Amino acid sequence: MISFASDYTTGMHPKILEAYAATNLEPLLGYGMDAYSFSAAEKIRAYIGKPEAEVFFLTGGTQTNETVISTMLEPWQGVIAAETGHIQVHEAGAVEYTGHKVLCLPSHTGLLDPAEVEAYIKTFYQDESHDHMVFPGMIYISYPSEMGTLYSKETLARLYELCKTYDMKLFIDGARLGYGLASPDADMTMQELAGLCDVFYIGGTKVGAPIGEAVVFCGCPAPRHFITMVKQHGAMLAKGRMTGIPFDVLFTDDLYMQISRHAMDMAERLKVIFQSKGYAFAWASPTNQQFVILPNEQIEALRGAVDFSVWEPADETHSVVRFATSWSTTKEDLEILKGLL
Amino acid sequence: MISFASDYTTGMHPKILEAYAATNLEPLLGYGMDAYSFSAAEKIRAYIGKPEAEVFFLTGGTQTNETVISTMLEPWQGVIAAETGHIQVHEAGAVEYTGHKVLCLPSHTGLLDPAEVEAYIKTFYQDESHDHMVFPGMIYISYPSEMGTLYSKETLARLYELCKTYDMKLFIDGARLGYGLASPDADMTMQELAGLCDVFYIGGTKVGAPIGEAVVFCGCPAPRHFITMVKQHGAMLAKGRMTGIPFDVLFTDDLYMQISRHAMDMAERLKVIFQSKGYAFAWASPTNQQFVILPNEQIEALRGAVDFSVWEPADETHSVVRFATSWSTTKEDLEILKGLL
Amino acid sequence: MISFASDYTTGMHPKILEAYAATNLEPLLGYGMDAYSFSAAEKIRAYIGKPEAEVFFLTGGTQTNETVISTMLEPWQGVIAAETGHIQVHEAGAVEYTGHKVLCLPSHTGLLDPAEVEAYIKTFYQDESHDHMVFPGMIYISYPSEMGTLYSKETLARLYELCKTYDMKLFIDGARLGYGLASPDADMTMQELAGLCDVFYIGGTKVGAPIGEAVVFCGCPAPRHFITMVKQHGAMLAKGRMTGIPFDVLFTDDLYMQISRHAMDMAERLKVIFQSKGYAFAWASPTNQQFVILPNEQIEALRGAVDFSVWEPADETHSVVRFATSWSTTKEDLEILKGLL
Amino acid sequence: MISFASDYTTGMHPKILEAYAATNLEPLLGYGMDAYSFSAAEKIRAYIGKPEAEVFFLTGGTQTNETVISTMLEPWQGVIAAETGHIQVHEAGAVEYTGHKVLCLPSHTGLLDPAEVEAYIKTFYQDESHDHMVFPGMIYISYPSEMGTLYSKETLARLYELCKTYDMKLFIDGARLGYGLASPDADMTMQELAGLCDVFYIGGTKVGAPIGEAVVFCGCPAPRHFITMVKQHGAMLAKGRMTGIPFDVLFTDDLYMQISRHAMDMAERLKVIFQSKGYAFAWASPTNQQFVILPNEQIEALRGAVDFSVWEPADETHSVVRFATSWSTTKEDLEILKGLL
Repeated sequence: MISFASDYTTGMHPKILEAYAATNLEPLLGYGMDAYSFSAAEKIRAYIGKPEAEVFFLTGGTQTNETVISTMLEPWQGVIAAETGHIQVHEAGAVEYTGHKVLCLPSHTGLLDPAEVEAYIKTFYQDESHDHMVFPGMIYISYPSEMGTLYSKETLARLYELCKTYDMKLFIDGARLGYGLASPDADMTMQELAGLCDVFYIGGTKVGAPIGEAVVFCGCPAPRHFITMVKQHGAMLAKGRMTGIPFDVLFTDDLYMQISRHAMDMAERLKVIFQSKGYAFAWASPTNQQFVILPNEQIEALRGAVDFSVWEPADETHSVVRFATSWSTTKEDLEILKGLL
Repeated sequence: MISFASDYTTGMHPKILEAYAATNLEPLLGYGMDAYSFSAAEKIRAYIGKPEAEVFFLTGGTQTNETVISTMLEPWQGVIAAETGHIQVHEAGAVEYTGHKVLCLPSHTGLLDPAEVEAYIKTFYQDESHDHMVFPGMIYISYPSEMGTLYSKETLARLYELCKTYDMKLFIDGARLGYGLASPDADMTMQELAGLCDVFYIGGTKVGAPIGEAVVFCGCPAPRHFITMVKQHGAMLAKGRMTGIPFDVLFTDDLYMQISRHAMDMAERLKVIFQSKGYAFAWASPTNQQFVILPNEQIEALRGAVDFSVWEPADETHSVVRFATSWSTTKEDLEILKGLL
Repeated sequence: MISFASDYTTGMHPKILEAYAATNLEPLLGYGMDAYSFSAAEKIRAYIGKPEAEVFFLTGGTQTNETVISTMLEPWQGVIAAETGHIQVHEAGAVEYTGHKVLCLPSHTGLLDPAEVEAYIKTFYQDESHDHMVFPGMIYISYPSEMGTLYSKETLARLYELCKTYDMKLFIDGARLGYGLASPDADMTMQELAGLCDVFYIGGTKVGAPIGEAVVFCGCPAPRHFITMVKQHGAMLAKGRMTGIPFDVLFTDDLYMQISRHAMDMAERLKVIFQSKGYAFAWASPTNQQFVILPNEQIEALRGAVDFSVWEPADETHSVVRFATSWSTTKEDLEILKGLL
Repeated sequence: MISFASDYTTGMHPKILEAYAATNLEPLLGYGMDAYSFSAAEKIRAYIGKPEAEVFFLTGGTQTNETVISTMLEPWQGVIAAETGHIQVHEAGAVEYTGHKVLCLPSHTGLLDPAEVEAYIKTFYQDESHDHMVFPGMIYISYPSEMGTLYSKETLARLYELCKTYDMKLFIDGARLGYGLASPDADMTMQELAGLCDVFYIGGTKVGAPIGEAVVFCGCPAPRHFITMVKQHGAMLAKGRMTGIPFDVLFTDDLYMQISRHAMDMAERLKVIFQSKGYAFAWASPTNQQFVILPNEQIEALRGAVDFSVWEPADETHSVVRFATSWSTTKEDLEILKGLL
């Protein structure tokens, strides 16, 4: 069976496996104090051109989001997110579990509108009457968004400017960062993105790593004693090598972007296949997740041969189905899919 | 350099690496819904002889402790632990972060005394005047303890009986479970231990796995929607295979106990080496952690050639030093150490 | 200066002051164990005709909401509220501070639509795919709502039926309960309301008491050790008499409803005054809060002579202004207001 | 029946009742923005001679402790307290509920020993190995302590110096502050105490007020948006006048210290009564709580005629009994007690 169910269905890039094997019996310090974690952090700093950036490796996306958000917010603050934001919808209330409110604003195909954000923020600064409300202390966005869409560099710059004006933080969830940056629609590099936010994370789990996300504090210092809070939030591993090594490999010889570009190449081919067969898309996505409208009968017919995610009903007889490519998607997978449609 | 610094300095048992490699490109469902996680859970249930037990794989020890404790306690309850307990001392306040108090009782070389526990619990049931106090709702113990010591089967049975009498839960932190059960001093099997508690976890990270701990609800059902709470607490991986596969391997052909016995064999040899050189132990430990009293000069002399953990000062000129063996300790390591003493 | 700024601008009903004075030097047990608190609870049980109901007195509305909600929800659950709900907007994130998400649904002039609620809840029961989401465990409504509007008995019954069908709780925030029940539009009594929810609270602070809200568990038992959790949440007073005495007085000789009817009588007269002067209302409110559209110039002219709350802009030159009556509003206040318009 | 059960058995000082009555129908702003709260804060600032101090009125002791502690600590910090400290023993885990650990040190008749505190703190600064522990961020003491004892000015100064050296905060729980300062053993004034801590609270509930404690940030600014966090923690009243008025009265014409001195006068007489009857004290207390060793038979004989608190068993046939005086204790009460012994 071939799978387009998600970008985390396969294990890890073979080079990471090799590195695990090659280093397996080296005794290393625990908790991220190993040479590979340090090397990975250094390579990331070099890649984004920010020698002073602070880099930490956490186990997964939800734990990264809630740890970063809750340690950067003051207790009286909440975090602004689009109503489709991962933290709002699919993280089991992890942010609220840390005591902070997610302040929802409308989603425009997964994206926040800076004008709406500013209108919302502004009210908190116009008068003193907001003592009984949760103050916006951070803007959370995903690049690419949960719907596969991308902020333009200009929009990102506007959001970051808002944050600076109103003394807020900008945090970018980059669970699929590579697939966003490698998109033909992307108008910025990771270096540029790192200059337009306070903190972002480089998704590992969905971009070739077996586990791990790299948090990069690039626009402000990391919260004091961040390591202690990563431990407190349960996002730390004793064998820090397990997240350090993958990032050390991914940031060697541009592997991270190379496999991201491969996934995007596969996504473009996938798009063409569906278009050529006459299927429509629920909305345009320039990244590795494609949202296709399929007849429910077709969906049933495909089951057993190909794996995918049924997203939501489109109408009585059709559904929106997500097909995701990844670093491990092959042309053969696509050929098989094409044959099945 | 050889290392006895801890039992998590090396990577993973080679068979786990092999299994990662062999399954790497298989598309699998995420979040623990993969065939290997199911198989591992099934093998664990079979191993402990409890077909109805519920098994979950979490990423590490701290996250396992805080998730299990906080989801099994009522909001008005705290957890009893020895003052040396890992949750009390070395988890960055993760249990308190979930809103629950750790109720400390004296440590007897790492162990709770059932009589002291009962005296403490009883007061809460003798009268109605405890409304302003935190009620004990669970007993937390480690097997082996943080000092390397072991509860006898009889003591464990007494603690569990107390829990049943007073409607509390008994939770065993088994971060080093294998090394406890494989000790010559152990008087019970994992099967027996599973019959004397409500929930325990089988340590993976310190016993050959790269990451992961297997939580086993054996004496009571898992909390409802436990999966959701594992997510909420940040202890879940998208690629659940990364914790499922190691346990599937470790519970095939008795590997878990086999490598645990190896570590204990190494620990016994290590003991003999220190004894033969005339060193004393700070206290007797029958498991893989040995606490040796070394002159501070000797400690300095060893640095650079061997890695270890300085535990605490013994007197003005001596310190307690922890040497830990593990699944990956070799006779060669021991020979080198011997030569250095 | 006269004030219609809110229903908590004056102190307390004179009979409560008298009772404080009459009992002042009696030594009483603390923490709600005094005879007046017991008597008040008994009178409330009798009034609603539910001898088995459990009644507790907490210090104020926010603390009551967050304590009731967080102690009745499971950790994996959130609470449904209208997007205008007090817990969503004006309680400084107190519910999220307890770790629970407020699940917002659209407000229809302050009210939830049972059909929308059901559509939302149903998705959680149609399939097993919601493990990563926050489950709805409670419906929170206000009677009257934050916009002054009222649920009909039929709508309330539908919401309660939904709760029973889906194993959820229904909680009614009755901060202004008397003013709702005394409204000419109300089609139910407190007795009937108590039969259509799991728990509600009888607002004291806004209905003649100086402090205090009476929580009534009428459709299910109170959470175990509720007293301990009220203490833990900081909603308890050492001198429980301070909340017990007011409710003992308010539920003697029907005082609670008598002063509520007075406030409603005043509100009806206030409406007539504005209508007679040609002012429009932003929306129809049948309770003690009236939302009048005033020219901004008029607002400025009134300042200094009368106090009120500017709610929100209506258009460039007009604003919505809230005028609230209460147990202490007098005909003289209204005459003065009339003269100023 | 006469009562020495506690210092919160009676209502409120008659002058507070009078002030409630005199101001009852004045419309006032809510949430502490009323003229009486402002006046009370001003009087407190003047009394302690610190015009820049920030003063807030909260509803009770537990809510004050958890709000102050949790808003002044960083997320990675805990609070040091004696093992007898109120926050450790009798607040239902309210501090842990906010996510922070109480770090217990030995109690010396209710007091911390600065040398022990320093030894504990120092270890956190000697090396970098404490990332997995909870850092001490605050020292919490009670003046007087839960056992009725007092810190000397010198000891307090040493504790405060430690805090300054190690960048920690010193917080004094003054639930019974007046009774401490009015003690013949007290060697400092409130003004002096305010110069030796970062924040303290002036107990109202136990010293003549019906409810309310006045938090005074005297050594550092209040946490930003403290009002919002008081709301979030449920420690705020809509009718802020209910706590503002009592403190306005108590800090007029030195009433607070005057009634405190009265209570201490009564306590001295109580001591003499017990001494003259040949009873011993469990330990020496120079404040309003006296801990007398009584035969259990005597305890039974007194029941029904006098109220008191049985503290703990002394031996098989005796118990420690607490007798507390307060602002409302009379010579007549003492005469009756004397007659009963």
